[in-house]
Amino acid sequence: MNEQIGPFKKTAIIGVGLMGGSLALALRGKRIFGTIYGFARSEKSYQKLKKLNLVDRVEKNIKVAVEGADIVILAAPVYAIVDYFKTIAPFLKKKAIVLDLGSTKEYIVAAAKKYLPRHVEFIGCHPLCGGEKSGAEFSRKDLYKNAPCFVVNDNFSGFGFKVTKLLWESAGGHVIALSAIEHDRILAFVSHMPHIVSFTMAAELPGYCLDFAGPAFKDMTRVAASPVNVWADIFLSNKDNILNATGKFIEALEKFRKLIKEENKRGVYEFIEKANRKQKNY
Amino acid sequence: MNEQIGPFKKTAIIGVGLMGGSLALALRGKRIFGTIYGFARSEKSYQKLKKLNLVDRVEKNIKVAVEGADIVILAAPVYAIVDYFKTIAPFLKKKAIVLDLGSTKEYIVAAAKKYLPRHVEFIGCHPLCGGEKSGAEFSRKDLYKNAPCFVVNDNFSGFGFKVTKLLWESAGGHVIALSAIEHDRILAFVSHMPHIVSFTMAAELPGYCLDFAGPAFKDMTRVAASPVNVWADIFLSNKDNILNATGKFIEALEKFRKLIKEENKRGVYEFIEKANRKQKNY
Repeated sequence: MNEQIGPFKKTAIIGVGLMGGSLALALRGKRIFGTIYGFARSEKSYQKLKKLNLVDRVEKNIKVAVEGADIVILAAPVYAIVDYFKTIAPFLKKKAIVLDLGSTKEYIVAAAKKYLPRHVEFIGCHPLCGGEKSGAEFSRKDLYKNAPCFVVNDNFSGFGFKVTKLLWESAGGHVIALSAIEHDRILAFVSHMPHIVSFTMAAELPGYCLDFAGPAFKDMTRVAASPVNVWADIFLSNKDNILNATGKFIEALEKFRKLIKEENKRGVYEFIEKANRKQKNY
Repeated sequence: MNEQIGPFKKTAIIGVGLMGGSLALALRGKRIFGTIYGFARSEKSYQKLKKLNLVDRVEKNIKVAVEGADIVILAAPVYAIVDYFKTIAPFLKKKAIVLDLGSTKEYIVAAAKKYLPRHVEFIGCHPLCGGEKSGAEFSRKDLYKNAPCFVVNDNFSGFGFKVTKLLWESAGGHVIALSAIEHDRILAFVSHMPHIVSFTMAAELPGYCLDFAGPAFKDMTRVAASPVNVWADIFLSNKDNILNATGKFIEALEKFRKLIKEENKRGVYEFIEKANRKQKNY
């Protein structure tokens, strides 16, 4: 059976920051996703979202935002997503499709299984875009353009996956389907560990060096401006993979240090040459 | 006595790669520096430099390139600079001003004292520009524009320093005068250690992660494409400072890891907040 996709009546975005706001902009006007609701968790945020005009309707009442929605998208830091699961569970429409945009997946998928009702279909997502800026005011229609959008699921041929794929492609991204375990292991190396390195490099720069930070240092610590609530949640919810990736990184650094300490010119050359070669492959 | 600066008859650039070539382009046409000679160490490089037209005269004979020059500029990796000291010493004009562009300064200043004749004035320089590209073919007139140019010297009011300052300012840079010791200690933190981190991150990326390197990873490993001969020399000639800076960095990383391992949410928050604050100050 080739079930038809949409058109849907209502899509709800819970958490309208940079990611949620940009997704709203990208999906609005595509009739298939219906009216886009955005949940504002405070009066201040309500006024801001009204002014920014990112969604069709801003709602302060999460029940009103969620009820009757065909698709519910949770765009928030990892632990906030899990809290939202508990809050929205009683209001979800039968067979609604629930997505999240959290940066770690195993923890979230397990929580979804625990807290969401059986009748909904949950699909864990992680679009690789955004960066060090945060806040709805930075939203832009093309944030997801060409972005890899990881989708983790037990069932890559079901209706929920098809809708999710259509959604990311409508926003300009391309879908990479993989398991939550693979996702978290890979992201620890390509994203989480590099952020830890960047935060550490910025935090530990001696005061007398501040005036001398050149292009290399600035590029390497650009992401050290990333929001604390998002990243603390990532580090804690992907703990084991991150301890492994940073442990391996420190081991390799110690090897490099040893080569320098022993003035092993050949070893230093080989290390750098390996980096030169590898860097061309991604 | 306010000694007049120039005009000079001849300036020689030994090592016409990205740095030397760009400097030649920036200084050519400024009459004060006279005819710009460039030394080519091989027939291949001679033909290439002829074609690129970066200097007024390309010379294959280092004696001819150097003799009679008022200013001699050595633009090469650290250990190559020291080799050039020995080679050019007998050909240097009385009271010539000799500059180098090497990235570490204590080692080079000591070698200059050892190998250069007493009658010349040596001024160690390190302009902070260039980056991961190398080769004369990437030369551009504005490479030094707004670049901080470190100058290390015992005497910041002498004739040689004045000429050097004029030279960097003519090329568009601004001079920062400091001691060789300070220079090497600072650069270990803001440049050398970050390069080691970048090389390590690129070299050690697991194969199954290659397809998933996002913007953060790419930015942090941009400089991992930097030339091996330049950087091996830097690491070995600034060994003690680099061992210190990388040692402190690893210590801080271990602290961060411990906070994650112990799920110390407050500690993780404080670490990231410190990075956020610091990052705004440079």
